[in-house]
Amino acid sequence: MSESLAATIAATAESFRSEAKSAQRTFVSASRLGDGFRSAVSIRDHALTVDEPHGIGGSDAGPTPVELVLAALGTCQEITYRAFATALGIPLDSVAVTVEGDIDFRGFFAIDETIRPGFQRLRVQVALGSTASQADVDRLVAVVNGHCPVLDMLSTPVPTTIDVRRV
Amino acid sequence: MSESLAATIAATAESFRSEAKSAQRTFVSASRLGDGFRSAVSIRDHALTVDEPHGIGGSDAGPTPVELVLAALGTCQEITYRAFATALGIPLDSVAVTVEGDIDFRGFFAIDETIRPGFQRLRVQVALGSTASQADVDRLVAVVNGHCPVLDMLSTPVPTTIDVRRV
Repeated sequence: MSESLAATIAATAESFRSEAKSAQRTFVSASRLGDGFRSAVSIRDHALTVDEPHGIGGSDAGPTPVELVLAALGTCQEITYRAFATALGIPLDSVAVTVEGDIDFRGFFAIDETIRPGFQRLRVQVALGSTASQADVDRLVAVVNGHCPVLDMLSTPVPTTIDVRRV
Repeated sequence: MSESLAATIAATAESFRSEAKSAQRTFVSASRLGDGFRSAVSIRDHALTVDEPHGIGGSDAGPTPVELVLAALGTCQEITYRAFATALGIPLDSVAVTVEGDIDFRGFFAIDETIRPGFQRLRVQVALGSTASQADVDRLVAVVNGHCPVLDMLSTPVPTTIDVRRV
């Protein structure tokens, strides 16, 4: 599979190199709030349920939005490791990631406007199984952290427009 | 339910106001890459599958990490609308959100290092059903956009430490 994945990655990169337009993609998520804090999400043909825990008014039918951000960062790291390890020919036997994020809810609850509502800090722990030399692993880590899309979005502001309409 | 949710929100805010320590929470996501780009995620007792689509080497067993970011933003907007509408006593019959994000994959594929690997821009469309006055809706929109945790994380960099260890 690794050889075929390497060929797929090389072919994809070549198509983006030769036709820049094909590299430009728009992703979409659509969701609708149901009872309480429970939301039903559609992403292409995938469905997700997002909710808040019991105790703060939710029914705990799924992860919270901020937990989805942690999952997005962890899995993006993993996929980026697989992609670059394959492309660079660096052996990668396993990759597992734990992401922790700290929130002070006095920000969200508008108790203290100097406290941000989002994560104050993130800690990412990456466990790599690889027979590669330490130099190759170091090279892999650097290229992954320089190209991980979700890490980029949490490190550099993303221009966002919000349009609200009444229905 | 709305009255009981209002009471829950008021009680939660009061507990955070009187005991700041209780407002400080750490969230965790743990994931492990399986075959190809497929990753199994655990968030408390919730499980998610993340993957890449067919065609770029995935098996499309779930949404991609960048799509999770869109879902996180959309559902965070919705939940924040519910919370503040309830707390402020502003009627809210429905809220549905579509989030679009543009990526130029020449960034991720390291074809052009001037192109960021993450979303270049996000477009959020919020559809609100409410019998409230336009002034109250405007007030709600402002307080939501000022306190939505995921919007904050995508607008203001989150300090992140990444620790890589070999296993």
